[in-house]
Amino acid sequence: MTIPAPHGPAADGVRRITVLSGGYGGAKFVQGLLALVRERPEPVEVTVVANTADDLWLHGLKVCPDLDTVMYTLGGGLDTDRGWGRREETWSVKQELEAYGVEPTWFGLGDRDVATHLVRTEMLEAGYPLSAVTEALCRRWQPGVRLLPMTDDRVETHIVVDDPDQPSGQRAVHFQEYWVRLRAEVPARAVVVVGLDKATPGPGVVDALLDADVVLVPPSNPVVSVGTVLGVPGVRDALRETGAPVVGLSPIIGGHHLRGMAEQLLTALDVEVSAAGVAEHYGARTAGGVLDGWLVDSTDADAVDRLRGAGIRCEAVPLLMTDVRATAAMAEAALGLAAR
Amino acid sequence: MTIPAPHGPAADGVRRITVLSGGYGGAKFVQGLLALVRERPEPVEVTVVANTADDLWLHGLKVCPDLDTVMYTLGGGLDTDRGWGRREETWSVKQELEAYGVEPTWFGLGDRDVATHLVRTEMLEAGYPLSAVTEALCRRWQPGVRLLPMTDDRVETHIVVDDPDQPSGQRAVHFQEYWVRLRAEVPARAVVVVGLDKATPGPGVVDALLDADVVLVPPSNPVVSVGTVLGVPGVRDALRETGAPVVGLSPIIGGHHLRGMAEQLLTALDVEVSAAGVAEHYGARTAGGVLDGWLVDSTDADAVDRLRGAGIRCEAVPLLMTDVRATAAMAEAALGLAAR
Repeated sequence: MTIPAPHGPAADGVRRITVLSGGYGGAKFVQGLLALVRERPEPVEVTVVANTADDLWLHGLKVCPDLDTVMYTLGGGLDTDRGWGRREETWSVKQELEAYGVEPTWFGLGDRDVATHLVRTEMLEAGYPLSAVTEALCRRWQPGVRLLPMTDDRVETHIVVDDPDQPSGQRAVHFQEYWVRLRAEVPARAVVVVGLDKATPGPGVVDALLDADVVLVPPSNPVVSVGTVLGVPGVRDALRETGAPVVGLSPIIGGHHLRGMAEQLLTALDVEVSAAGVAEHYGARTAGGVLDGWLVDSTDADAVDRLRGAGIRCEAVPLLMTDVRATAAMAEAALGLAAR
Repeated sequence: MTIPAPHGPAADGVRRITVLSGGYGGAKFVQGLLALVRERPEPVEVTVVANTADDLWLHGLKVCPDLDTVMYTLGGGLDTDRGWGRREETWSVKQELEAYGVEPTWFGLGDRDVATHLVRTEMLEAGYPLSAVTEALCRRWQPGVRLLPMTDDRVETHIVVDDPDQPSGQRAVHFQEYWVRLRAEVPARAVVVVGLDKATPGPGVVDALLDADVVLVPPSNPVVSVGTVLGVPGVRDALRETGAPVVGLSPIIGGHHLRGMAEQLLTALDVEVSAAGVAEHYGARTAGGVLDGWLVDSTDADAVDRLRGAGIRCEAVPLLMTDVRATAAMAEAALGLAAR
């Protein structure tokens, strides 16, 4: 595949790109980015700092949905129709757990997936940190990137929802329960990321930001994917200090998310659900935020002037990740914005 | 099904039968026993004290082959062609673990089976003893017996085999490795049951022996199935004290085992591989052993006089568990011998 490169291959001298990633949105974006950089004459090292706040313990297994989505997607193992889990999956374990009457039953725990969780859990219980476990799992999947958990510490996003049966009228559910069981169909009243304030960045995370030539923020959920990575103490500081330009891509197009539940969660945080609103939520680096540049979809061109005023270079380009070629063009536009 | 009952139904007044069981041999025998006692007008409670020395930790999961074989067989979930594991099994987890290069790969860990191990492991790690976990698993399987692990303590049978690469010329392998990976094709030099001397009988085990009307020893492996149950401190004492007759069935027919590796292990213990040899190995209760009666196969009728001389009532009957009816007839013969 040849991607039109307006500046000519590697004219920007970029060798090290670090991406802050959530689930499938982040993984798909990196897939496009890899297709792009593989065309360059000079090798480019891509590091993905992945959200781990979706992680959960399930039936005694440590499940890391975002790490696995990146690993499976880039390693060719993802079920791309579903956008999660393994392709050619079987469901015997899940059926049996249901036959035993074991809760919870709402999580899509496939048999092939279980094997990943077994290897991970056994390594964790033997004392390896999640970062070392992830490296070991990637030896099989060869994702073509260095995949770093944002932290080795346990961090879990909980969503506060209404519950008239509780004395307080509310209760907190794990993010996965909000997303998978409740399908994000009830209002999110608050987002509580348990353990985030005490977490330390995983090995290599801060250096991957400080040493990068470009930092990219894919069109992932700004609250529970990118937001949690940014919330690890030390990550924002590294983004403020790095010499690399930081460029993001809007997950909101025409006032709506394409996949996921960004609208519900942005609303819980009183953030305007728009391409410009998300950029302002991240903030300009010049004003203590994290962004130098921001790509919005062509339909959101009105955001360009608004954000320039806020100190964020902004450009409107097509932002639909319809295929790898379209996604590579988005990555190219992001690198182009970073180079200017 | 009607089983010919020479003494008339329940003429022997037996209400409580306790069986010491290993794997598939024990489970099949109990299946026949249940078919028999279900014909009786009075309810009969059957308790199975199962061997747990085959248990192993595998990929972080607690696997209990003998408990599961009893539970699956009596609950209708066993793959009766293989004689182990679940019917309608799938193998995705195993394939994936192999793709990750995780050892060991020789154990037949099916997906449906994995669910059982997940439930068990999670309960054990939450602090429940194995006996409570087994009771919980049996709520699904409804095996029709009270299934008791011989102990809640960790006990593991290891087999000493030759290994010229070791300084001592020998090494110990887990029983499952000897049986599954090595297929019992190399000589067993010794049997070491790690933890057995420190184990205590599981809840209910001693009472199940003391309060029984009859204790039966199925045609299971006398070394690694029945032998380990007998080796739990307190079990032999209970068998000596109980008022119940103790009757066993020979797993050796015509000098050979029908399934398993009894010959190899009896040889390791210098026990004569014959129907009479096994009975003498168990010993007569009158001489400090555990048996009152012993059934041998019709082809081993020569053992009858020899064992009578040793204080063990013996009878020769067909001992092939070809189907439930034949197995029920064996159980009937055992109860008949116990009643005399």
